[in-house]
Amino acid sequence: MGEKKTGLGRARMEWARVHQRIMNEICRDFSAKRPFEGLTIGVCLHVEPKTAVLCSVLAEGGASIALTGSPGTTQDDVAEALAADGIAVYGRRADGRSEHAGNIRSVVSHDPDIVLDNGADLVAAVLASESAHRRLRGGTEETTTGANRLREDFARELDFPVIVINDSPLKSIVENQFGVGQGVVEAFMHATNLMVPAKHFVVIGYGFCGRGIARSLRSFGARVVVVEVDEVRALEAVLDGMEVRDLEEVLTWGEVFVTVTGRAGILRRAHFERMRDGAVLLNAGHFSWEIDVESLRTLSVETETFSTDIEGFRMASGRSIYLLARGEMINLAASGGNPIETMDLGLALQARSLARIATRGDELSPGPLPVPDDINREVARQMLAALS
Amino acid sequence: MGEKKTGLGRARMEWARVHQRIMNEICRDFSAKRPFEGLTIGVCLHVEPKTAVLCSVLAEGGASIALTGSPGTTQDDVAEALAADGIAVYGRRADGRSEHAGNIRSVVSHDPDIVLDNGADLVAAVLASESAHRRLRGGTEETTTGANRLREDFARELDFPVIVINDSPLKSIVENQFGVGQGVVEAFMHATNLMVPAKHFVVIGYGFCGRGIARSLRSFGARVVVVEVDEVRALEAVLDGMEVRDLEEVLTWGEVFVTVTGRAGILRRAHFERMRDGAVLLNAGHFSWEIDVESLRTLSVETETFSTDIEGFRMASGRSIYLLARGEMINLAASGGNPIETMDLGLALQARSLARIATRGDELSPGPLPVPDDINREVARQMLAALS
Amino acid sequence: MGEKKTGLGRARMEWARVHQRIMNEICRDFSAKRPFEGLTIGVCLHVEPKTAVLCSVLAEGGASIALTGSPGTTQDDVAEALAADGIAVYGRRADGRSEHAGNIRSVVSHDPDIVLDNGADLVAAVLASESAHRRLRGGTEETTTGANRLREDFARELDFPVIVINDSPLKSIVENQFGVGQGVVEAFMHATNLMVPAKHFVVIGYGFCGRGIARSLRSFGARVVVVEVDEVRALEAVLDGMEVRDLEEVLTWGEVFVTVTGRAGILRRAHFERMRDGAVLLNAGHFSWEIDVESLRTLSVETETFSTDIEGFRMASGRSIYLLARGEMINLAASGGNPIETMDLGLALQARSLARIATRGDELSPGPLPVPDDINREVARQMLAALS
Amino acid sequence: MGEKKTGLGRARMEWARVHQRIMNEICRDFSAKRPFEGLTIGVCLHVEPKTAVLCSVLAEGGASIALTGSPGTTQDDVAEALAADGIAVYGRRADGRSEHAGNIRSVVSHDPDIVLDNGADLVAAVLASESAHRRLRGGTEETTTGANRLREDFARELDFPVIVINDSPLKSIVENQFGVGQGVVEAFMHATNLMVPAKHFVVIGYGFCGRGIARSLRSFGARVVVVEVDEVRALEAVLDGMEVRDLEEVLTWGEVFVTVTGRAGILRRAHFERMRDGAVLLNAGHFSWEIDVESLRTLSVETETFSTDIEGFRMASGRSIYLLARGEMINLAASGGNPIETMDLGLALQARSLARIATRGDELSPGPLPVPDDINREVARQMLAALS
Repeated sequence: MGEKKTGLGRARMEWARVHQRIMNEICRDFSAKRPFEGLTIGVCLHVEPKTAVLCSVLAEGGASIALTGSPGTTQDDVAEALAADGIAVYGRRADGRSEHAGNIRSVVSHDPDIVLDNGADLVAAVLASESAHRRLRGGTEETTTGANRLREDFARELDFPVIVINDSPLKSIVENQFGVGQGVVEAFMHATNLMVPAKHFVVIGYGFCGRGIARSLRSFGARVVVVEVDEVRALEAVLDGMEVRDLEEVLTWGEVFVTVTGRAGILRRAHFERMRDGAVLLNAGHFSWEIDVESLRTLSVETETFSTDIEGFRMASGRSIYLLARGEMINLAASGGNPIETMDLGLALQARSLARIATRGDELSPGPLPVPDDINREVARQMLAALS
Repeated sequence: MGEKKTGLGRARMEWARVHQRIMNEICRDFSAKRPFEGLTIGVCLHVEPKTAVLCSVLAEGGASIALTGSPGTTQDDVAEALAADGIAVYGRRADGRSEHAGNIRSVVSHDPDIVLDNGADLVAAVLASESAHRRLRGGTEETTTGANRLREDFARELDFPVIVINDSPLKSIVENQFGVGQGVVEAFMHATNLMVPAKHFVVIGYGFCGRGIARSLRSFGARVVVVEVDEVRALEAVLDGMEVRDLEEVLTWGEVFVTVTGRAGILRRAHFERMRDGAVLLNAGHFSWEIDVESLRTLSVETETFSTDIEGFRMASGRSIYLLARGEMINLAASGGNPIETMDLGLALQARSLARIATRGDELSPGPLPVPDDINREVARQMLAALS
Repeated sequence: MGEKKTGLGRARMEWARVHQRIMNEICRDFSAKRPFEGLTIGVCLHVEPKTAVLCSVLAEGGASIALTGSPGTTQDDVAEALAADGIAVYGRRADGRSEHAGNIRSVVSHDPDIVLDNGADLVAAVLASESAHRRLRGGTEETTTGANRLREDFARELDFPVIVINDSPLKSIVENQFGVGQGVVEAFMHATNLMVPAKHFVVIGYGFCGRGIARSLRSFGARVVVVEVDEVRALEAVLDGMEVRDLEEVLTWGEVFVTVTGRAGILRRAHFERMRDGAVLLNAGHFSWEIDVESLRTLSVETETFSTDIEGFRMASGRSIYLLARGEMINLAASGGNPIETMDLGLALQARSLARIATRGDELSPGPLPVPDDINREVARQMLAALS
Repeated sequence: MGEKKTGLGRARMEWARVHQRIMNEICRDFSAKRPFEGLTIGVCLHVEPKTAVLCSVLAEGGASIALTGSPGTTQDDVAEALAADGIAVYGRRADGRSEHAGNIRSVVSHDPDIVLDNGADLVAAVLASESAHRRLRGGTEETTTGANRLREDFARELDFPVIVINDSPLKSIVENQFGVGQGVVEAFMHATNLMVPAKHFVVIGYGFCGRGIARSLRSFGARVVVVEVDEVRALEAVLDGMEVRDLEEVLTWGEVFVTVTGRAGILRRAHFERMRDGAVLLNAGHFSWEIDVESLRTLSVETETFSTDIEGFRMASGRSIYLLARGEMINLAASGGNPIETMDLGLALQARSLARIATRGDELSPGPLPVPDDINREVARQMLAALS
């Protein structure tokens, strides 16, 4: 019996790949059809095992790839494994804003035919370079933020199609509701070792992510109060068996507060001053601004670190409040991020949309576009088959 | 604002203690009444943050404590923190069987008035020492295994009461059903980053632990088949919405197999040979013998390590089977063990039972005894209050 | 102590009214503001307790009302109670198609200022009468079928606004998902006295209604297979923990088949021939055409009536199939219809929309319109308050 | 195609029999083995379709049967159908206490070899008759009340075995938890047409029945508060996700109050005086004494009947309280009783226990006995098979 020796980055990619069944099927298809033969794809994406599999699959489809990550999230062992496979990788975890700008320029210097963008950074750089602009056929944009930037800042110059992945309702259900719903509950349990049944959770926000989190908690036996300003969402929460209240009404009731609204300063000084001793705070929204950590720090007379992901803040009153994962998105910061299969779907939408740009991009109208309906349906069908 | 600098062991104990509300209340009571004033308690228990809190609380109640752990599970940073508080701690994580025997003798050399035992090791050593035996008033036994040993091997010599904690139905519900139910599902999610909804789980065993695991999985949207030989338990599983099948019928259907039966060799060669490619195996039973890892290793032509807790075994047929946490109890091996609040209850039963031995031990009949009903009820009442 | 003697129709209206909290609040508002003062409203609506409350509330708001029901559904005791309150009521349960046409003409002969329509019958009659057409300010339409008819058959003539109630997403969630979800499961249990846990249900269609039914069944411990052709809905069903299959695959597995697709001939001869002995069929879709009852009758060698709502069909093979409520929508046919509170919401949307036509109809564009967003939000807010 | 004409009583028996799969299997076995050949069984049991099937099956096993029901519950159409099959049936629905005593005597006058008793009435009558006593081999007792009477009143005279069916833990799970859990929720929905999601339920008592009801309600999206004095049960309720409170704390919160404790006067004047306007009361306990209906009547200034199963009581304060099914066990009074399959199990335990008395009664010790373990297991196995 042999023992396979594999670098850590590659081992993690392999584990992900085993379970990315949609991407595996797409890979077989791309290997046969080579939709990207002779094309260069410029990619900006968090560099971690699951997205790395996407790069490998695009390469199997004939693409040359120039890749960079986002500041602070690049996993160096994964980057190394990709570089060893011949992908041009720019950037390291230690990079800051200015290194990121340089990495973006390096990717664009490859004169990509297609871009996979994340926050519209690559498109911005392409538009600033006449040669790159001339060559570009179009691309995809991962984020809603990037899509807004395309609409607001680059509307006039955008003479190529950009398919916006995050707006797919399919992705909202699979990745936001089910992926985040599971990941946040798991990360809370793992970081704290606390019991979920009977615990008082206040979930602030009942969009796809909040709904997924609240339902997972309730089905686990927790008592859940939802805070939601939108009347229709609030009503759905109530019919789902949740109690809906104003945040001010449940400050002393709540034992754990979860922010997932997309807005800044949701939990702030006025709230911290009234919470019960022992309250635990965590954020599941994309940005770490939902909990005003600075106020918390200012209010406290002493802080104490209990583990990598738990910091305690003691108030003058003697009460303590505990903050998880520094207020960063807890499923990413304190655990492995969204479950592999839920990301597999989003990455499959990326792969199919890039291939659409490569093979029939000239049929698409310029500017931001939704994921074509047939791609949504095909990927849904593939995930269905993978789950049967 | 100050920043409190705390050693890691003590920090983890403090985090646990914040959430051990029953033990905190008992601590207040013990501090006032000092039930153990002038007494020595010999303790054998896994040395980790939650049990360490028990030792502190006993010390607050006036006890001198001599403590040892079990081979391989002692957390050295926690042991250090306890030693700094004046508790006599014997043993380190690196200890093997023979060091453990020495540690037991060291504890008994303190001539304890009371023992908190774990597998009847301390009682065996006490019975072997005339002076120690003369002094002992009685004790508690954590495990069912230890209780059986008392009944079978020491029945005649046992002239002191031993309260058996694990047989309390209260503990079965709280720690086995809810504690293990949550912990195993969390550990699976954390170790694998796999999606639970829609996944095919085969849970083997529908006792308190198996029931807790299967219900948690189903409520999370998993598809669960239960394997259970006891007809009445099997019927309960079916009415709970599970499908009940023979293991042989679901070998190719299952994606994840969970053993939680208490018996050896549940998953073995004949099963490995027929499982689907990609099957994941994990054990949630107390001993690691439920999955026959040796057979798995023998069958495989290549193994690959994906992370600390995932090992892949490739068969000659090309199929791979993945084993989590080496077949050890996954909630302990791959995560923080049972949730703090569920252990709080078991430790409170310990604390109250030890105090009963100390204060009214002469009213109890000798030999193994169930937890007195009034203690069960009082601790249930305290947990109820803590959860309100 | 007195005993209040009330006719049955009024007693049932009173019971409904106690629980129509939104309508009660609207009633207080309408009584004060009299939005319909001096106006006549022509109403076509199933005449039963909950809709009768709507008529009373409109009358409280100052309206004169001329009302007719739909053929075959008018509850005569309720009609009587309304007539006693001064509402002009046309029609009886025994009415057929031709009586219905006459009733519609009678309502229109009141020259209504506003119509509350159900299938566009009143609008068609108004458009056919020059004087009525001249007077009409606009109206509401309850059904999607009626809305389609307005768009297809009357698009050119429609020079007044018609607010379409059924398209409100709020109504879809509350009445379709939760109302029908509860009502169908209740009606099944009541009509059959069969156990839901562990039973094999095949739910055909995973729209709002199907989702509500399937989730209710699963949460009750049933085993649920969903049949759904739309890939995205099917994927959501799978992630909700359902199994998704083709109907052909589960004909012998299923014990109960539920149709809720909106399409005709879903269950038909080819299926009946392969179903297991004892299969139970029920329809939850709006029309009774989803189960091809004629084929079932033709196939059978003997029929047997077990109760008002259960008919058995014995096949030549000896197998029997049982049909509930003659294939009519089971929650209406075999029980009291959608729960009062869920209908309260839909009727409140009606009441508010009619008041909008009365007071600000001239600001609205002609033709079919969605429920104004502020009305959706206000009614959601009122239901939230009612449920707190 | 023929149309089978069947009397109503027989049609209802046939519908039940289709779904009593365990009884059908036992019937095949009894037909072959004739365990009751030449024996007379005296039966006292509610006469309704499901129990009628038991009588038929015993007859198929060779028994001559003399049957009577309980006062007020005999369904005359079913009694008629049984009589037509040659069973000696005594009693009608209209019977009172004194007719019941006569019916019991009539059954005993058949000098039964075995009795199936319900409340120990038959045993009492047998013991009073020397000839009957001499002949009797033993019997079964359906109720816990009857078992207590056997132990307390007849302990000395009981020289034959009586197997007590209701104490079987198997029956507690299947019939009490799942059967009553479903039936009560269904009956509430059917009687009131009210929405369950988001409604505030107070469930008083968390034994097997209360647990089944509370879990069904919560899984349907209701908000459930449990009132339970036993600390261990209360703790289980909390971990199941329920809120546990004293009744006094939730009198104004509750919208629906469910009694299921087995004790009298649970809801009484002091509670009625403080409940919110519109509170709905229902009883799911065996006796109608749990709600003090007399006090309610005395307190009210006016009563109003809304339907067969809803009576309103208006207080001087203007508040109204609504009582369902006169305070009788709602699943029986307002709907078809426990689901057929759950009763099938209890009746199968009866049938197998009677056969044990017939064939091996002399091996059993005299007095009340639990259901033999092998019978429990065999019936569990049969139900498992029936549900697969």
